[in-house]
Amino acid sequence: MADLYFLFSLEDTFVADKKISAAVIKRLPRYYRYLSELLDNGIERISSGELSKQMKVTASQIRQDFNNFGGFGQQGYGYNVPYLKNEIGKILGLDRDYHVIILGAGNLGHALANYAGFEKRGFVVSAVFDVSPDKIGKKIGHTMVYDKHYTRTCISKDLEGYVKGHTVDIAALTLPKSIAPAVAKQLVQYGVSAFWNFAATDLNLPGNIAVENVHLAESLMRLSYNISNLPE
Amino acid sequence: MADLYFLFSLEDTFVADKKISAAVIKRLPRYYRYLSELLDNGIERISSGELSKQMKVTASQIRQDFNNFGGFGQQGYGYNVPYLKNEIGKILGLDRDYHVIILGAGNLGHALANYAGFEKRGFVVSAVFDVSPDKIGKKIGHTMVYDKHYTRTCISKDLEGYVKGHTVDIAALTLPKSIAPAVAKQLVQYGVSAFWNFAATDLNLPGNIAVENVHLAESLMRLSYNISNLPE
Repeated sequence: MADLYFLFSLEDTFVADKKISAAVIKRLPRYYRYLSELLDNGIERISSGELSKQMKVTASQIRQDFNNFGGFGQQGYGYNVPYLKNEIGKILGLDRDYHVIILGAGNLGHALANYAGFEKRGFVVSAVFDVSPDKIGKKIGHTMVYDKHYTRTCISKDLEGYVKGHTVDIAALTLPKSIAPAVAKQLVQYGVSAFWNFAATDLNLPGNIAVENVHLAESLMRLSYNISNLPE
Repeated sequence: MADLYFLFSLEDTFVADKKISAAVIKRLPRYYRYLSELLDNGIERISSGELSKQMKVTASQIRQDFNNFGGFGQQGYGYNVPYLKNEIGKILGLDRDYHVIILGAGNLGHALANYAGFEKRGFVVSAVFDVSPDKIGKKIGHTMVYDKHYTRTCISKDLEGYVKGHTVDIAALTLPKSIAPAVAKQLVQYGVSAFWNFAATDLNLPGNIAVENVHLAESLMRLSYNISNLPE
């Protein structure tokens, strides 16, 4: 029997009326990363076979994935790396900039604010908010820490004023899980429609809001599962 | 037509000769998180219907997932929350402690070392390593920062000595991608068999090594994709 299973997905999307599975979309950033590295190393053309070898996925999967978007390919000549990177970048929405605010200037908030790789991809951290008085007014890299006073139910006017007066494309939440959902709900009311959530909880926002969760504790549990099931 | 697709997976595993798909395993930590929260709120019994409502997955998927492990359930009475949490915890390997070392005492390394939630789950950070002279000897929380000198190809005896003299179950890599694969390879030679990799690169380790990647830039790209494809 073939090693396969069915997966019903609510997250599948359509590109030019063609349905693209969530699994394909999930793999695109990895392609983008490899193509960026190839380009950094001056490699401008690559066969699906060679890409397959480097990425450790089958050439057939690469072709199938790319066929969702018209193929990109030149049979016999391999893929044009800058073109392919650019096209996948466009699909991923990387052909524009995103203004990111970070909620929570703890270690993780600092790490995100200082990571130069995000800005290179067009994700510009424009403000960081925290409740701690000794952090407010301090700079993180080139980003100003703004005042933010929130409780479990209310956020101060400072955050509200900032969000309403500036473009905010993404709010990164590096907040305790006890307050993250309430803060997210407030931000949605102020007009924020995309969240990068690091709090160990689901935000339960409406369907027209984009949410990407990074649940580190769950990641660690997948690792402990794999440790417990390593081949002898 | 039903909204489904086929997924061939190389990562599927077996529990008592029964094949468990990688997708099911991937969902287990989320179940564990919800069951932990229920228990924290004093809820000791829950129906699959109610769990379904809270987790926003179908009751049928929950039953199918749990049936991989014998079901756990008591029809008519719902699930016993402490029992279910404990059983899923055992499957995830959470019935033991893990000694974690962190390579790289930057913001992200600090964030991981200071996050109390990991220790609660049995992941104990026992040492943090860095090359920066002004960090060595400093404490992070209750964890000592050890000396570590590495170049792209060689790691100093300090790290080697520590790893060979102590139990190291997991190495968390919060290192630049330019050195992470070489450091990981060295650690494998010292006997480390599990990695929690935050570097934006694949480690390319042998198949008997457990690797869990947290590629933040890829996560951000999935978010920008979703922003670009939000329903109007």
